Amino acid sequence: MAKTGHQKIEWVSKHMSLLNMLQKGDYDLTGWRIGMSIHLEAKTAYLAITLKKLGAQVVVTGCNPLSTQDDVAQALADYGIEVHAKRTTDEKEYFSFLHRVLDSKPDLILDDGGDLTVLAHTERREVLENLKGVSEETTTGVRRLRNLQERGILNVPVIAVNNAKMKYLFDNRYGTGQSVIDSIMRNTNLLLAGKKVLVAGYGWCGRGIAMRARGMGAYVMVSEVDPVKAVEAIMDGFEVGKISELCKVADIVITATGVKDVLKEEDLLNLKNGAVLANAGHFNVEIPMDVLERLAEEKYEIRQNVMCYKFNGKEVYVIGLGRLVNLAAADGHPVEIMDISFALQTLALVYLSKNYATLEKKVYEYPAELDEHVARLKLKALGVEIDELTPEQVEYLKNF
Amino acid sequence: MAKTGHQKIEWVSKHMSLLNMLQKGDYDLTGWRIGMSIHLEAKTAYLAITLKKLGAQVVVTGCNPLSTQDDVAQALADYGIEVHAKRTTDEKEYFSFLHRVLDSKPDLILDDGGDLTVLAHTERREVLENLKGVSEETTTGVRRLRNLQERGILNVPVIAVNNAKMKYLFDNRYGTGQSVIDSIMRNTNLLLAGKKVLVAGYGWCGRGIAMRARGMGAYVMVSEVDPVKAVEAIMDGFEVGKISELCKVADIVITATGVKDVLKEEDLLNLKNGAVLANAGHFNVEIPMDVLERLAEEKYEIRQNVMCYKFNGKEVYVIGLGRLVNLAAADGHPVEIMDISFALQTLALVYLSKNYATLEKKVYEYPAELDEHVARLKLKALGVEIDELTPEQVEYLKNF
Amino acid sequence: MAKTGHQKIEWVSKHMSLLNMLQKGDYDLTGWRIGMSIHLEAKTAYLAITLKKLGAQVVVTGCNPLSTQDDVAQALADYGIEVHAKRTTDEKEYFSFLHRVLDSKPDLILDDGGDLTVLAHTERREVLENLKGVSEETTTGVRRLRNLQERGILNVPVIAVNNAKMKYLFDNRYGTGQSVIDSIMRNTNLLLAGKKVLVAGYGWCGRGIAMRARGMGAYVMVSEVDPVKAVEAIMDGFEVGKISELCKVADIVITATGVKDVLKEEDLLNLKNGAVLANAGHFNVEIPMDVLERLAEEKYEIRQNVMCYKFNGKEVYVIGLGRLVNLAAADGHPVEIMDISFALQTLALVYLSKNYATLEKKVYEYPAELDEHVARLKLKALGVEIDELTPEQVEYLKNF
Amino acid sequence: MAKTGHQKIEWVSKHMSLLNMLQKGDYDLTGWRIGMSIHLEAKTAYLAITLKKLGAQVVVTGCNPLSTQDDVAQALADYGIEVHAKRTTDEKEYFSFLHRVLDSKPDLILDDGGDLTVLAHTERREVLENLKGVSEETTTGVRRLRNLQERGILNVPVIAVNNAKMKYLFDNRYGTGQSVIDSIMRNTNLLLAGKKVLVAGYGWCGRGIAMRARGMGAYVMVSEVDPVKAVEAIMDGFEVGKISELCKVADIVITATGVKDVLKEEDLLNLKNGAVLANAGHFNVEIPMDVLERLAEEKYEIRQNVMCYKFNGKEVYVIGLGRLVNLAAADGHPVEIMDISFALQTLALVYLSKNYATLEKKVYEYPAELDEHVARLKLKALGVEIDELTPEQVEYLKNF
Repeated sequence: MAKTGHQKIEWVSKHMSLLNMLQKGDYDLTGWRIGMSIHLEAKTAYLAITLKKLGAQVVVTGCNPLSTQDDVAQALADYGIEVHAKRTTDEKEYFSFLHRVLDSKPDLILDDGGDLTVLAHTERREVLENLKGVSEETTTGVRRLRNLQERGILNVPVIAVNNAKMKYLFDNRYGTGQSVIDSIMRNTNLLLAGKKVLVAGYGWCGRGIAMRARGMGAYVMVSEVDPVKAVEAIMDGFEVGKISELCKVADIVITATGVKDVLKEEDLLNLKNGAVLANAGHFNVEIPMDVLERLAEEKYEIRQNVMCYKFNGKEVYVIGLGRLVNLAAADGHPVEIMDISFALQTLALVYLSKNYATLEKKVYEYPAELDEHVARLKLKALGVEIDELTPEQVEYLKNF
Repeated sequence: MAKTGHQKIEWVSKHMSLLNMLQKGDYDLTGWRIGMSIHLEAKTAYLAITLKKLGAQVVVTGCNPLSTQDDVAQALADYGIEVHAKRTTDEKEYFSFLHRVLDSKPDLILDDGGDLTVLAHTERREVLENLKGVSEETTTGVRRLRNLQERGILNVPVIAVNNAKMKYLFDNRYGTGQSVIDSIMRNTNLLLAGKKVLVAGYGWCGRGIAMRARGMGAYVMVSEVDPVKAVEAIMDGFEVGKISELCKVADIVITATGVKDVLKEEDLLNLKNGAVLANAGHFNVEIPMDVLERLAEEKYEIRQNVMCYKFNGKEVYVIGLGRLVNLAAADGHPVEIMDISFALQTLALVYLSKNYATLEKKVYEYPAELDEHVARLKLKALGVEIDELTPEQVEYLKNF
Repeated sequence: MAKTGHQKIEWVSKHMSLLNMLQKGDYDLTGWRIGMSIHLEAKTAYLAITLKKLGAQVVVTGCNPLSTQDDVAQALADYGIEVHAKRTTDEKEYFSFLHRVLDSKPDLILDDGGDLTVLAHTERREVLENLKGVSEETTTGVRRLRNLQERGILNVPVIAVNNAKMKYLFDNRYGTGQSVIDSIMRNTNLLLAGKKVLVAGYGWCGRGIAMRARGMGAYVMVSEVDPVKAVEAIMDGFEVGKISELCKVADIVITATGVKDVLKEEDLLNLKNGAVLANAGHFNVEIPMDVLERLAEEKYEIRQNVMCYKFNGKEVYVIGLGRLVNLAAADGHPVEIMDISFALQTLALVYLSKNYATLEKKVYEYPAELDEHVARLKLKALGVEIDELTPEQVEYLKNF
Repeated sequence: MAKTGHQKIEWVSKHMSLLNMLQKGDYDLTGWRIGMSIHLEAKTAYLAITLKKLGAQVVVTGCNPLSTQDDVAQALADYGIEVHAKRTTDEKEYFSFLHRVLDSKPDLILDDGGDLTVLAHTERREVLENLKGVSEETTTGVRRLRNLQERGILNVPVIAVNNAKMKYLFDNRYGTGQSVIDSIMRNTNLLLAGKKVLVAGYGWCGRGIAMRARGMGAYVMVSEVDPVKAVEAIMDGFEVGKISELCKVADIVITATGVKDVLKEEDLLNLKNGAVLANAGHFNVEIPMDVLERLAEEKYEIRQNVMCYKFNGKEVYVIGLGRLVNLAAADGHPVEIMDISFALQTLALVYLSKNYATLEKKVYEYPAELDEHVARLKLKALGVEIDELTPEQVEYLKNF
């Protein structure tokens, strides 16, 4: 099995041009111990390998019980990286792995969703003594760490990698957009053309999903709580309405909101027979799996990764147990997207290693110059040249 | 393994509404022996089951060495259907299965690509005595059987199911479009947004692929030999040019032409390092695999279904060995598309069983009234009502 | 005013590359008298000029009361072409111009919609003696001349220019698509993004309009009577339903069906307050203007080309009096589209002049070799080179 | 002529639902003198009328020499509004009108582009004594007023209406997108499908234009100076490169950058014969008209609003003299877009009238609660209901 893990890592290594460029740059993490909690598959493995090549000692675990790929975890160990991870549905086991990473007393944490950092700031406060900085990958994680900051608990500088333009403009839109649609197609083999697809949430993720669902020919409906985003969705040509109404006619419902219980019990009861449900949000709370379990008169896996719930004389299908569908039931974001995000991560960790002493204990926006640097690396990788403002134009912008 | 085969068949049975309607209709094939050669996976299995439910005796094989799913083949046997098929790369074994089907002396043939019918008209002419009709699924097959007709060899009436509007307007566009893109995404995990995708051929398949590749954010280039189609591709906003030029900058090349050697040896040598090749045409002749094999200094499977060829200091990746990529390395057309096509097939076989005696030995277009009937069944399945012309409007169209 | 007519003709002359190529070719119409009935604006004027340059004597009138641009008509006279046309709402005056053209006893007719040819075959049968052929531009016209043929009245060979691939695949889709949307935008200044646009008819025109309306961000709904086209519209992601239901929520209704009374009286009564109506079909019968006139308690021009009808406590706006909106209230098809169509027309007239003696008195499909010739001319004009099949590939297609 | 002005105002009044709602609300501007400098056409006229209905005394001029519609200016006077404006190419006359507005000693300024406010802060500093606030409409204007602030000159609070989400997400994208394409189509009658359209700048305006040009079938190329935006454009499927290269193959060039001299002299010399140039930026400096005038061996108006420049053996066409093409040569943004922007403007002026005393002399972002209020008004006008977060969900977002 480890062989397939090695293959997967080799494959992505050929398409992560930015990490390859950084490996050849003059960045140095020698002597730094980095604890990583991240969806453990080939691309994140290659990030860990990259950090190790820059000199760091890396200890890795997953950040979601179902998103760990065991063959990759095994292969990663062969690269001399300490791995504590296993695909599981056992939340307790999942948390035991987080503890093992903290046991290593990391200098820096690379977090995805905030579980590791929150644990360090609550149950495991003794590790804070050594911890010098955190870089956080997701919207959800940044929100949670801001909550720590607001409650006065945050003890280290945090770089909100998620808030880098090269992250949120790309990962959450092109990455989630493609991979969620990919996962739904490969796991159902159902036609998207003409299907009524309801996307809950029109943030960056939601609009990526909506755009790609339309790109496959679906009829897309959108629900939102933010009136500005709702008007945008309308002007993008989508049907917009209350989820309680739209879910009655939807063939496929995809949640991408960041909040819990996007569908209410009544909504579940109102779903069409044969409706397919998928979640694209970080936590498995958007589709209320507990309610579904309670309602179900019968349930069984009807296709790999697809669970059939029978109730009220109808069947409803849930992909990937309501966990984020592109990771729990597919290969996650496309390689090149993660390559960009992980270039941002790598630069953030290097930045923290150099500047931690002068940084405050708060959540920082991603440094703009690093953000632009990654954009220029990506253009270089693509072989695209762009214009520069002339001195006269710069002057014009200043003085006109 | 058969368990997963049964699961797969159950899953598709829930989404093949038209076949389910036909099973409940008053169609009768009692006493008819039907030889099927078709990509053997869950959907075609459900067609076989449907024909059996209408009373037919069904003998099945594959129509492409790599497109047979063994678990489905096993499960099908449990339904009392005679199956001769195995996923293989051995062309000889593949043909031995075709012979086994002909051994059963079928009354009707349901063909996909024409291999079974051509064999019956060449090496196995003794089976023609009993054969009363053929329904053929694909463009390629129809072309081959028309060749038989032109050469004066064709001995039975053939219904060109491929030429039904409900077939070629849907299967070749929405079906191939989605499933080819699905296969490329799931087998590479590469980002399509911003990728330079070259689609060779702008027939119904090619434009479906181009439309969906663009729908996923790709930059799409098209090559064509038909000047009218080339102008259409330009007006659809695609870059159009000679394949020998476009292949130099393509990240992904997808062939959908129906002819052999779409890429020449020189083109292979001019590909970018890291180019991905996939074929969406019926036969594995569009990408010249023989030339690639000859050029390769090294080759190995770098990811499941992806073969890496090294030559001239670069790597080129081929998905599914150059066989039609949506079947050889994914689940084929979406379920609902095959449901439409197979409703057409079922009605064609019933039609042949009733009318064979009065039909000529030639290739017939698909009967228009059956075509429209299937369209109305599909609208019914979708719950969509449409308008009817009023008598005054009919009169207007006639007499104005 | 003629100055603006000359300007308009000069402008289009710079963008009608195909006509310019044909003018420099070795085509000869010397001695042939051609009667043209066509939407008289700059592009058709340049067709008349082209025919004159090839040696023909040209007599021109309009083919729709409102589509004649008077400044162009005047300018055309300066080129030595006999013009009988005026923008008018007076049907009688319109028909008097048709009669004037027939008075010239044309050898060939270039018709658009069939009015001139039908007149020649009914009230003015004496002109048939001299008439040697007709080329007809539109779907509607071809249908009418086929009706003549079926009734045994047709007395000359007719070339269905409309049925050329380079015509119906382009003019009816890219031409109508763009120009109808252009006309609605320029005449209303209303936002299309998020608007509910109902397109009646999903033929080539309807799908062009639907595609472009979506391209401007509209939410597009489609009504159809053909079940196959209805399923296509669904799979293209549009909402499909009965016009009597969809018209209740539409902000804009565009008819493109070819039949009369697309909206019924009840539908008009059910329209939303502020609904905008436009017709893209050849005749002004799709929106029942008579019913609207009868219902209206008040009517007045509220914006140039936009008539406001008040009834039942609401207002409904009709652009261009229900005549084809891209010509009655804008500049018609884009120049390059008409350039293609008129290259087809020119070649059809030359073809008729050479072959009329051996042709039957029926409606002919457009000659395939001329069709392909025009496609190749267009590629040349665009500077695009395409592939040719190799002899091996041709052989493969024949013999496989 | 004033009659057409009245018609135009009546037409827009029927589609400016938000202004109509505000007129019926309990907003009061009695006693406030408002100086407006704005593209003077029907929609802005209706804003002036709305402000007057709320009690204000309104003095109006244009904000761009060519964008004033004289019939509307005349009609507006009939509503008891003081108007100083005329369509002109005379910059001096244009500035004299600005002075006339300042002569009225306005309490508040509603500015578009910043000319009026800059004038008040430079040559006419005596008016600052009475001035209590400014609301500014555009990106360019906000930048200029920020420059004033940075130079320590700004003497009043400024509300950056442009920075409201309901402004920049809509006006600059859906508004500019549609109206620029509309203007190019109506002024050229050229086909967009298959045309090579180069959009310079991928800010909100540029991406709106690119999206709509693609929506009409164009092949879209993008130039940018910001590397992040350049990568976005690539991932949106556009060709991205240096303007100096792309302009050599462009059929149409549209500038939307906010800086001067987007095309250099060498670029002009490299344009294709027949290239069409249009500017969508606020000032007529993006296309270097001075260079074009110098190069031209001959120039003349070849179509209304289209100037032909001949040089170097080729012709280049400029629409609207290089001024913003949707206003100088069409009707500006669609009515509903301006309705939203002007609802924001109206609320900003009411806000300034109430809070000016406590505000600092700086540029303020648009108040978020007013922004959301306008979004909810728009949803109400559209008849769309959306979801609200439940208390449990609000809690979840806070505490998780």
